[in-house]
Amino acid sequence: MKAIQQENRTTTEGTAEAVTAKPKWRHKHILDLDDFSPAEIELVFQTTDAMHEILSRPIKKVPALRGKTLVTLFYEPSTRTRSSFDLAAKSLSADVINLSASASSVKKGECLIDTLETLEALGADIIVMRHPSSGAPYVAAKHVKAHIVNAGDGWHAHPTQALLDMYTIQGHKNSFKDLRITIIGDIKHSRVARSNIWGLAKMGANITLCCPFTLLPMGLDKPEGQFQEVKIEPDIDKALIDADVIIALRLQLERQQSGLLPSIREYTNLYQLTEERLAKSKADAIVLHPGPVNEDIEISSAVARGPRSLINQQVTNGVAVRMALLYLLAGGGQQ
Amino acid sequence: MKAIQQENRTTTEGTAEAVTAKPKWRHKHILDLDDFSPAEIELVFQTTDAMHEILSRPIKKVPALRGKTLVTLFYEPSTRTRSSFDLAAKSLSADVINLSASASSVKKGECLIDTLETLEALGADIIVMRHPSSGAPYVAAKHVKAHIVNAGDGWHAHPTQALLDMYTIQGHKNSFKDLRITIIGDIKHSRVARSNIWGLAKMGANITLCCPFTLLPMGLDKPEGQFQEVKIEPDIDKALIDADVIIALRLQLERQQSGLLPSIREYTNLYQLTEERLAKSKADAIVLHPGPVNEDIEISSAVARGPRSLINQQVTNGVAVRMALLYLLAGGGQQ
Amino acid sequence: MKAIQQENRTTTEGTAEAVTAKPKWRHKHILDLDDFSPAEIELVFQTTDAMHEILSRPIKKVPALRGKTLVTLFYEPSTRTRSSFDLAAKSLSADVINLSASASSVKKGECLIDTLETLEALGADIIVMRHPSSGAPYVAAKHVKAHIVNAGDGWHAHPTQALLDMYTIQGHKNSFKDLRITIIGDIKHSRVARSNIWGLAKMGANITLCCPFTLLPMGLDKPEGQFQEVKIEPDIDKALIDADVIIALRLQLERQQSGLLPSIREYTNLYQLTEERLAKSKADAIVLHPGPVNEDIEISSAVARGPRSLINQQVTNGVAVRMALLYLLAGGGQQ
Repeated sequence: MKAIQQENRTTTEGTAEAVTAKPKWRHKHILDLDDFSPAEIELVFQTTDAMHEILSRPIKKVPALRGKTLVTLFYEPSTRTRSSFDLAAKSLSADVINLSASASSVKKGECLIDTLETLEALGADIIVMRHPSSGAPYVAAKHVKAHIVNAGDGWHAHPTQALLDMYTIQGHKNSFKDLRITIIGDIKHSRVARSNIWGLAKMGANITLCCPFTLLPMGLDKPEGQFQEVKIEPDIDKALIDADVIIALRLQLERQQSGLLPSIREYTNLYQLTEERLAKSKADAIVLHPGPVNEDIEISSAVARGPRSLINQQVTNGVAVRMALLYLLAGGGQQ
Repeated sequence: MKAIQQENRTTTEGTAEAVTAKPKWRHKHILDLDDFSPAEIELVFQTTDAMHEILSRPIKKVPALRGKTLVTLFYEPSTRTRSSFDLAAKSLSADVINLSASASSVKKGECLIDTLETLEALGADIIVMRHPSSGAPYVAAKHVKAHIVNAGDGWHAHPTQALLDMYTIQGHKNSFKDLRITIIGDIKHSRVARSNIWGLAKMGANITLCCPFTLLPMGLDKPEGQFQEVKIEPDIDKALIDADVIIALRLQLERQQSGLLPSIREYTNLYQLTEERLAKSKADAIVLHPGPVNEDIEISSAVARGPRSLINQQVTNGVAVRMALLYLLAGGGQQ
Repeated sequence: MKAIQQENRTTTEGTAEAVTAKPKWRHKHILDLDDFSPAEIELVFQTTDAMHEILSRPIKKVPALRGKTLVTLFYEPSTRTRSSFDLAAKSLSADVINLSASASSVKKGECLIDTLETLEALGADIIVMRHPSSGAPYVAAKHVKAHIVNAGDGWHAHPTQALLDMYTIQGHKNSFKDLRITIIGDIKHSRVARSNIWGLAKMGANITLCCPFTLLPMGLDKPEGQFQEVKIEPDIDKALIDADVIIALRLQLERQQSGLLPSIREYTNLYQLTEERLAKSKADAIVLHPGPVNEDIEISSAVARGPRSLINQQVTNGVAVRMALLYLLAGGGQQ
């Protein structure tokens, strides 16, 4: 496993679109990956490399965002995503205000737009928001001048998670082109899966979705969709054959009451990523999970803590990817 | 409306007391405006102007309070006031600790004085407190050496809100002298109204209070009170005639159960600030609201989001006013 | 009492082990005091003196931990301990992330190890943790590379509280050697008592525990234990005779339902530290309490707020002691 941990990210000349010149950064917001070009994704990765170098210093702090204010506005609980943004912002010397739905006047029934306008009036330069409603960050982006970063909206998108997943994959594989990526779990309700599909398909990967048909989102099972590269394979043993990368999704345990799952036990029997099943993938296959893990439900402890698991590396990369995105949003890409 | 937004604050030579020389700052605490002179209020405004200039810089941060510790101690929920102080303190490079009643050992039944003494012993230089009991900040100011800033105590006072309201008004009107200011809503339970009355009356404004008699505080309806400039006019259509400034107050929706209101619907019919009613005020009248707004209850959406509304400008001014107050408390006025 | 407040910490040549040379700091974690030598405890005190000097400056901030990340991970509520660490870290210019069990995905049932590994992957350099389970920080220290500081684990240990108590004692007494220290209260459930016993016994103090037998931990009542210096005296009037230092413990009021106490009132009658009882101790005896105080339960208001009480001084010393520990953990002792 040491080999995997130390492997360096190689050049990506083989990606779907050749990267000829460093593109100019043109995004005001980070809403989803559907409007990112492969070259722009590459720019994020290159900037992330630079941020990793900063994080490896004894004093892991630079003044890039000094005097800027970042607000995290979370309408759903989160430890890792919120802390990741908080640390990323602080490493860039931004001031951070954390607001959560339970501890603020969101309780008083204030509507989202009013809250956003207030944050803007308070001087927020960047608003990182998580909201249970799909599309909420798009509404936000239309109403405020601050930069909006989508940290998860309903079942829709989680672009920074997808970028950190992709950055982690790229650190271990030569190229996304024709890489066989299997995503297992509750695809229907997974904003992580959806953003990863957008990003990975753009980069030329072959994606296989593996889940019960009841957990498949509408649209994705049609061959003539936007996602031509996406295959559906409900049998996990088939879905894992020759996979280069396996992304196991977190099962929302409360989903059991939705009628879409017979039981957690049955789901576990049919879809848990075990060592035995993992053996069907390629010898150098890597395993990702967005965390937090339900151990021995969607993934066995042995796999989650095993030599192929990059779960903690994803967390580490998350800080660097978010630093890169904040840096680029704040105009760092123009210099 | 652009005109209003861009209008500059003019000189205030016409205020009740002529400002002859810059007064020395003599306040250790900010408890209410009753012990502020017009000249001192002017000093806050002048300092606020300087803070606005800092906030307009690309790097909106100065080291004025570097190495100082500010604690926000909130026994009631708040987004905007707490965040406003937090951002103001961070722009002055103070370290900030946020304590709220629900997330601390306030739960363990610790009494206010003990909590304050602990904060002082921890090294708090400035304690910004919100408390449901009127007078709590006065008790605090007697017991600790730290500076106390009242961020709202019961129905009593909210001086920093009043100062930001007054600063916002002064940015759009030549002088407070004889300015016709109408405050509409639940005056009885409004610490915002009470502090504004103190401050605005001092500056020479004519104040009209508009509310059902059940929501009028005792004392204010007597002609020979401290507030000779204050008139009572329960009919909103009359109260708005020739008004220069209208301050609409938030209706605490839970007040309906108090027996003081027949119903929210009836209150809305009788006291909502609508475009039709607003037309009775002067052509250049401005509308303020301390936020968060109950849209279409105390104020119509059209007015709240309309060209006369300065609601978001109030929020922006709030950060600068609080920076000014923290700066003056920390000794900035002596330099 | 002024005399006590101004008294300076004298040299400690009389401690159990003579401090011949400044020891090298060898601790990666702060778990409990059982593995601290007297010389190491002295080193913490000397470093604390230096931190006090920093805190007395107009700008109480040094860049010692700039670019380092400290996480406070609290599974139990706390104001003073958490804020103390937060302020200590900020005075050393560290970046601080506060995580509490109620506001994070701890709710989602994530296990402790996973949370710790995530924090490490996020870049935490120091993790300050409070956990209801005794031994949790030891588990943590085995699993992560970050420094672990135990801020209280179950009934087991609270080493930073003991160090600040000891530092406070040393500021008022010539030497720990043969100092008569009486600890009163619920010893059985007190991590504060347990860590103090370890530390004080090491420094050569004579310790008397005073509590009902039902609140005495097992093991401590045997004369041939590790704690030969520890005596048991359930009668408070006898326990206080000639005491130099009295440490009153907080009574967990919910303990009444445990069957170990007949009633709060009876406990108060038998064990409350009153002025009358305090008179039996030495004329220059000092009173400590870890806070927050249940006034007129384990200690009378008159004593808690009286001239012998060092309760607020403990809080102030707490920030400096924690600064010292963070500084030493981060490598400051090597320079």
